[in-house]
Amino acid sequence: MNIYLAGPDVFLPDALEIGGRKAELCARYGMTGLFPLDNAVALAAHDASLQIFRGNEAMMHEADAIIANLTPFRGPSADAGTVYELGYMAGRAKLVLGYSNDPANYVDRVRRFKTITDRGGLLFGADGLAVEDFGLADNLMLIHCLELHGAPLVTPRTAPADLWHDLAAFETCVRIAAQRLLPQAN
Amino acid sequence: MNIYLAGPDVFLPDALEIGGRKAELCARYGMTGLFPLDNAVALAAHDASLQIFRGNEAMMHEADAIIANLTPFRGPSADAGTVYELGYMAGRAKLVLGYSNDPANYVDRVRRFKTITDRGGLLFGADGLAVEDFGLADNLMLIHCLELHGAPLVTPRTAPADLWHDLAAFETCVRIAAQRLLPQAN
Repeated sequence: MNIYLAGPDVFLPDALEIGGRKAELCARYGMTGLFPLDNAVALAAHDASLQIFRGNEAMMHEADAIIANLTPFRGPSADAGTVYELGYMAGRAKLVLGYSNDPANYVDRVRRFKTITDRGGLLFGADGLAVEDFGLADNLMLIHCLELHGAPLVTPRTAPADLWHDLAAFETCVRIAAQRLLPQAN
Repeated sequence: MNIYLAGPDVFLPDALEIGGRKAELCARYGMTGLFPLDNAVALAAHDASLQIFRGNEAMMHEADAIIANLTPFRGPSADAGTVYELGYMAGRAKLVLGYSNDPANYVDRVRRFKTITDRGGLLFGADGLAVEDFGLADNLMLIHCLELHGAPLVTPRTAPADLWHDLAAFETCVRIAAQRLLPQAN
């Protein structure tokens, strides 16, 4: 069984190492991890970004499940590329799993960046737009997608010291994937 | 033909009005706009967020295309819920269209929030993670998804005065949708 390893991990300076560690964990549970950087692309090529897209899409087509790293990235929500891939895999009715190493709820995540104003029980951000207030970790589409098409978002009780390298929550997702996909794991 | 109207527009204080304007534009081109807030949900219900999810998913299943408002939201990238829906519709092989009222590229968008450091030609954010530098407006998965499964991201030459209420780029997407979906429009 092939697991697509989605996440902003690809932007880490040691992305190849973390991809290797994730693939090893998949192998330990009898599955194959597909990490975007396994596709060789010359970054200097004029169509490098398109090659990356095509490589990732081909990997998703090969994959039986996705494990998405939904730890907030450059804002209160998860990385856009990862969220796109979560939606793509859900749209194709694949098993969707995800984790966030930041267990905070969305309102608290928004509050880290900007003041939130309470207007008669409805919360608004400094941008004047409402702040989703359902006690969920991120936008409801992501959270309920996982619940209904995979398993609830996996989060640690408290954020690990190293948000980008701690793989405990990731390993929980791998274990769930094995239980769902491999008959002998049950 | 039904067009799913995705975007953080639902968080605007005048969301119902903007949804109405978008639906009117769709009607003018002979199509039906499906706006998430058309689903009646009591926000006080204990399972309100799940009801919203189910309503949006049902609307996406009814829709022949999505027009996603990918204007940056609370960070350099598009709204997470909207990006999820873009991926979901692409995964289901529907026509995917999108616009951003902010024509800036991703590197400039990141720079608005935090310093970017150039290390030997590779850009890194203040978070220590690499900054995608392909001259694209957002994460490459979103941008190339639109190119390959719909039409290139629609952006104005310069940002309109009102990022959240200007519908010129949206209308361009509606026109493209009509050309693709309605034989009589050609």
